[in-house]
Amino acid sequence: MATVGTSSSDDAKSHAAGRTGRLFDGLSLPASADFHVHLRDGEMMAAVAPTIVRGGVDVVFVMPNLVPPITTVEHAFAYQQAIAKHTDAQTLMSLYLHPSITPDTIKQAKKSGVIFGVKSYPAGVTTNSASGVVNYEQFYPVFQAMEEEDLVLNLHGEAPPADDITVLNAEEAFLPTLFDLHKRFPRLRIVLEHCTTGAAVEAVAKCGPNVVATITPHHMFLIIDDVVGDPINFCKPVAKLPADRLALLKAATSGNPKYFLGTDSAPHLLGAKRGGLDMHQVGKCAAGVFTQPYATQLVLEAFEAAVAKGVVKQEQLNLTTLEGFLGDFGRKFYRVEPSGRRIKISAKGEQVVPSIQVGGSNANSSGQVIIPFRQNNPIYSLEWTS
Amino acid sequence: MATVGTSSSDDAKSHAAGRTGRLFDGLSLPASADFHVHLRDGEMMAAVAPTIVRGGVDVVFVMPNLVPPITTVEHAFAYQQAIAKHTDAQTLMSLYLHPSITPDTIKQAKKSGVIFGVKSYPAGVTTNSASGVVNYEQFYPVFQAMEEEDLVLNLHGEAPPADDITVLNAEEAFLPTLFDLHKRFPRLRIVLEHCTTGAAVEAVAKCGPNVVATITPHHMFLIIDDVVGDPINFCKPVAKLPADRLALLKAATSGNPKYFLGTDSAPHLLGAKRGGLDMHQVGKCAAGVFTQPYATQLVLEAFEAAVAKGVVKQEQLNLTTLEGFLGDFGRKFYRVEPSGRRIKISAKGEQVVPSIQVGGSNANSSGQVIIPFRQNNPIYSLEWTS
Repeated sequence: MATVGTSSSDDAKSHAAGRTGRLFDGLSLPASADFHVHLRDGEMMAAVAPTIVRGGVDVVFVMPNLVPPITTVEHAFAYQQAIAKHTDAQTLMSLYLHPSITPDTIKQAKKSGVIFGVKSYPAGVTTNSASGVVNYEQFYPVFQAMEEEDLVLNLHGEAPPADDITVLNAEEAFLPTLFDLHKRFPRLRIVLEHCTTGAAVEAVAKCGPNVVATITPHHMFLIIDDVVGDPINFCKPVAKLPADRLALLKAATSGNPKYFLGTDSAPHLLGAKRGGLDMHQVGKCAAGVFTQPYATQLVLEAFEAAVAKGVVKQEQLNLTTLEGFLGDFGRKFYRVEPSGRRIKISAKGEQVVPSIQVGGSNANSSGQVIIPFRQNNPIYSLEWTS
Repeated sequence: MATVGTSSSDDAKSHAAGRTGRLFDGLSLPASADFHVHLRDGEMMAAVAPTIVRGGVDVVFVMPNLVPPITTVEHAFAYQQAIAKHTDAQTLMSLYLHPSITPDTIKQAKKSGVIFGVKSYPAGVTTNSASGVVNYEQFYPVFQAMEEEDLVLNLHGEAPPADDITVLNAEEAFLPTLFDLHKRFPRLRIVLEHCTTGAAVEAVAKCGPNVVATITPHHMFLIIDDVVGDPINFCKPVAKLPADRLALLKAATSGNPKYFLGTDSAPHLLGAKRGGLDMHQVGKCAAGVFTQPYATQLVLEAFEAAVAKGVVKQEQLNLTTLEGFLGDFGRKFYRVEPSGRRIKISAKGEQVVPSIQVGGSNANSSGQVIIPFRQNNPIYSLEWTS
């Protein structure tokens, strides 16, 4: 597999000087698992899917929010085949919760062996969520079938737009729905995706063992101050308060198997991220942070920064905790066997996070690039050792 | 004076169809006063200063955050002369609170007749605030001189960056400082500028009559959801929650002379607003919302929208309240005589908010434009009737 530490990108200059306090230099780990990725399609997929392995990841749970959304087993299967042309990472596929999905679809999905979960998007809250859920009650028969077939329900946990709902309280306002679904379908395995608040972390802790949460690397770095006025850091759900970031860091380093990595890596072209390329107006910026090529590295950078700031104790970061958050806990929840492949982290070949080209030869002049999270920041390098 | 309703801008298409529920069609008002503007310098000033009158405004309080900041009477006077080449609006000048300012500077400032206030920027919180205040105590002798000379203290009311301070709570965290300064210098006239929270509105109400607040038009439209992912709506202080917006609308329509218009109109080139024009990376977006050419019109649009939503009662919007917020209250506080000029609002020649060119002939190709707040939205037209 590719070695990020010797990437040929022009932008990826090595930092000979190095930084001090590098906790993870030389660390050997099992391959990571990323249980929340957006791989898009077309040229974007061709640019993004090959970067999965650069992040030390060999299995991904793939979100279904294409246009149109993936609502059939056939579509999911075709999408998986298309992705496989660009990566040898294992792909766990999902369906987009939609009125066209019936209990029978769920049975087919289970039988396919390809589909591991069904993703629920509340209508209108994030990228390509226009086809999303307005009312969960209509899906109770589907949830019951999922419980019986043992398929995972993946929740984008934000209350839909309303007068008293903002980007700040939408996640907390969703939590009663989480509790309600858990109560109605107690054996249904549920993932509260990309949780961003202390309230969400606590809610998941209160539920039974079949309710878990993914945590993204970027939400362990960001607060709302980093989001306003910085389109690259804008995603849904938005990063919240310092206390929320701290709660995520504590959950991710707790060794509790309820919390594991899902990057929510969500690439957009530069033009979309900055609200267009028009020289006379600015539109809304696309929501999404791109972390795919640095999934493992960013988690380690976030943990290290938290130790340096004194908000996480270094002794928390033992191998069991690290391996658990980065892959073990998620694999056990999704019942995926580890591949046995391993990666090694190094501070010596440290890289600078470069942008990624999308598409053909005119790319330079038209904003056809993806700007990754923490662009131009130094980051651990990573190589595959088996 | 110029008639906005017959602007020659290519972008300003008239809306023949018109909108319903236009409360202010045909309204005649005294010229408005804007007690918080950023006019910049150079080409930007040349583009921006002429738009003051388009907003129905004939007197402005001019902020001193140039680079370098305005800290001497001479600099303020020269700046006023430069502005006068581009507008016949009356300009009330200010100094930037800075260690180089002494009680003697304050005496000179008062004697000049040109300077009406001293603006305090907490270090690091907004555009060109790097020279700002770290500790207020060092300025007590200056504040005492201001109290004696009866110069206004203009406060950017946000606590400086700290671990537990975010863009969301920085204003509320500043309020104890407001109370403290008011207690120490009870006769000092203080303006809490561009207040954005219900807490700030209440704090000002609790103080004596010589503590007042300006309110911007954009904060009567926006909440935090409108700011994340939209660089045009990004300013400091950021827009807060729906309850805060409601408190601002209620204060502005209360008829209480403590609350009056200060637009905080703050132009930036498009490139700066969208985090640069580089096709390979995105920087931080400049903080500031540009409302100058529509100062009066935007206030009326905000009030009308609030009535339509049922959060403000139409009977609040009597002439005394409107004229008070738009000019009377501020003029009385600053002791400025009204000019006697009048404006007329019209729904018939309704405009679309266009962008504004800055500088020379290459403007089209290089993002040399200012994108105003609510670009491409329809807005009342305004003409000067005397």
